[in-house]
Amino acid sequence: MKIDAPLFESLVDDYQQRVDAALERWLPPPDVNPICLHQAMRYAVLAPGKRVRPILVYATASALGIDLKRVDGAASAVEIIHAYSLIHDDLPAMDDDDLRRGRPTCHRKFDEATAILAGDALQALAFYIISHDPQMTPDAEARLQMVEKLSLFSGSRGMAGGQAIDLAAVGKTLNIAELETMHIHKTGALIRTCVQLAALSTNKLSQQRHQALDSYAKLIGLSFQVQDDILDVTSDTVTLGKTQGADSARNKPTFPSIIGLHASREKAQELHQNALQALSIFGEEADILRYISAWFVERSN
Amino acid sequence: MKIDAPLFESLVDDYQQRVDAALERWLPPPDVNPICLHQAMRYAVLAPGKRVRPILVYATASALGIDLKRVDGAASAVEIIHAYSLIHDDLPAMDDDDLRRGRPTCHRKFDEATAILAGDALQALAFYIISHDPQMTPDAEARLQMVEKLSLFSGSRGMAGGQAIDLAAVGKTLNIAELETMHIHKTGALIRTCVQLAALSTNKLSQQRHQALDSYAKLIGLSFQVQDDILDVTSDTVTLGKTQGADSARNKPTFPSIIGLHASREKAQELHQNALQALSIFGEEADILRYISAWFVERSN
Repeated sequence: MKIDAPLFESLVDDYQQRVDAALERWLPPPDVNPICLHQAMRYAVLAPGKRVRPILVYATASALGIDLKRVDGAASAVEIIHAYSLIHDDLPAMDDDDLRRGRPTCHRKFDEATAILAGDALQALAFYIISHDPQMTPDAEARLQMVEKLSLFSGSRGMAGGQAIDLAAVGKTLNIAELETMHIHKTGALIRTCVQLAALSTNKLSQQRHQALDSYAKLIGLSFQVQDDILDVTSDTVTLGKTQGADSARNKPTFPSIIGLHASREKAQELHQNALQALSIFGEEADILRYISAWFVERSN
Repeated sequence: MKIDAPLFESLVDDYQQRVDAALERWLPPPDVNPICLHQAMRYAVLAPGKRVRPILVYATASALGIDLKRVDGAASAVEIIHAYSLIHDDLPAMDDDDLRRGRPTCHRKFDEATAILAGDALQALAFYIISHDPQMTPDAEARLQMVEKLSLFSGSRGMAGGQAIDLAAVGKTLNIAELETMHIHKTGALIRTCVQLAALSTNKLSQQRHQALDSYAKLIGLSFQVQDDILDVTSDTVTLGKTQGADSARNKPTFPSIIGLHASREKAQELHQNALQALSIFGEEADILRYISAWFVERSN
């Protein structure tokens, strides 16, 4: 399939709708008053969002010729892990944010206890989906490897570890290597997981191609975060759907605060070019992944 | 193996030491200042505790003739899920407890953000162990079923759901059926998981025996909680290692508060007798499970 910019946009729309339908199927129905755990889970997950991670799962599957229904579960699981991490990161004891995806954060809409539990239950739901979805690959070994990747990359040596580094870094001076280490964990690990879960859905992938995809994923995981830091400075709260300037207000180290805005933009472009280079062993079937890399560094929200 | 009371006590000691050694292997090493995520995880998990859930995993494996090293991973995973739930339940937004296992709660020892993240990372670690441990059963289908059980029974329809019911019930009048529903989720589901994970470690178990074990697990899961409620009234803080009378002080419905102390004791005994009945298709190989049922309703901490 030859891809151009309009087709890419239409595919992104398709993937967003596809994962929203899958998420709706996996989320528990609203519960009965006064308990609102299920409502809080639904509120956080179904909030309007870019669905970057599911889109990456679908795009990788598409590049590898995998039937998309084989990866609906993986796409849902990564979005659910992302949603749980946002709920917990927004809590008063963490980033203390009031706004997320253009709406009150989960603990503002419900309460802190419900938000904590909703995050906990969402993490469990992600693993339930990977282990339970009958449409995913029937290869149990591969499914078990997906559980392993998802748990490793979201745990203390991945996303949760990155958030701990982030909290400890508030008010500190980091050098660029330390900042990258933080982001490789906090954001990069889960983005890497997206590509790996899709790759594990086929047994026809050579080791060389698997590694090329992983290199690509690591590079765009970092470029995504560089662009996030740039947008925190240059965009506005309505466009972002979260509080603009929140990182600098909180005295958090960011790429612009350490190397400046201009060098940050160069950094993002360099990562994008390296990501394209990593995909060089693929033909035009991987064009969708090339478009995603460009999207990550050109997006305005 | 013929079991009597002294041998049972010695086995319980062995199992406690065995799981502590396994937990030590699985937990990440302490991290570098100022980050204390790994320390917080270690502090919460390695705190002195009864290790009820791992003991139940080992005892079930023993009753089924399964090599204990096949279930070290499952035993570690259930204890880690339990530890994460205690960290989060103790948070100021939830039960706001200062004392756990005779020591300051995780958020008192460290801080709230670290406690939230430590709980999150521990949940991920539990799934990592089940998917990764090379000593567990090589049957990938069975391992995937373990992930499914553990995620289902710890999520919004299990443990996390039970905690949400619990929080919504504070200051409310529940009837005995509602109280049981809460506990079947909050405590019972994870205890049931212990028996199921051990049972999934062998492919030689008949459907009838599997169901008998599940019935047993449901009964002792409830009797354990009835006894917990009794001890909250009759024991003291030093013996419990957590604040005595905390439930009644918080106006939480408990078995003694609804049906009285005497009827609660009768209820615990009745559940114990029913648990023995559920095991009637097993011979003396299941004596260790019979002793566990007795221990659950006779324990003083």
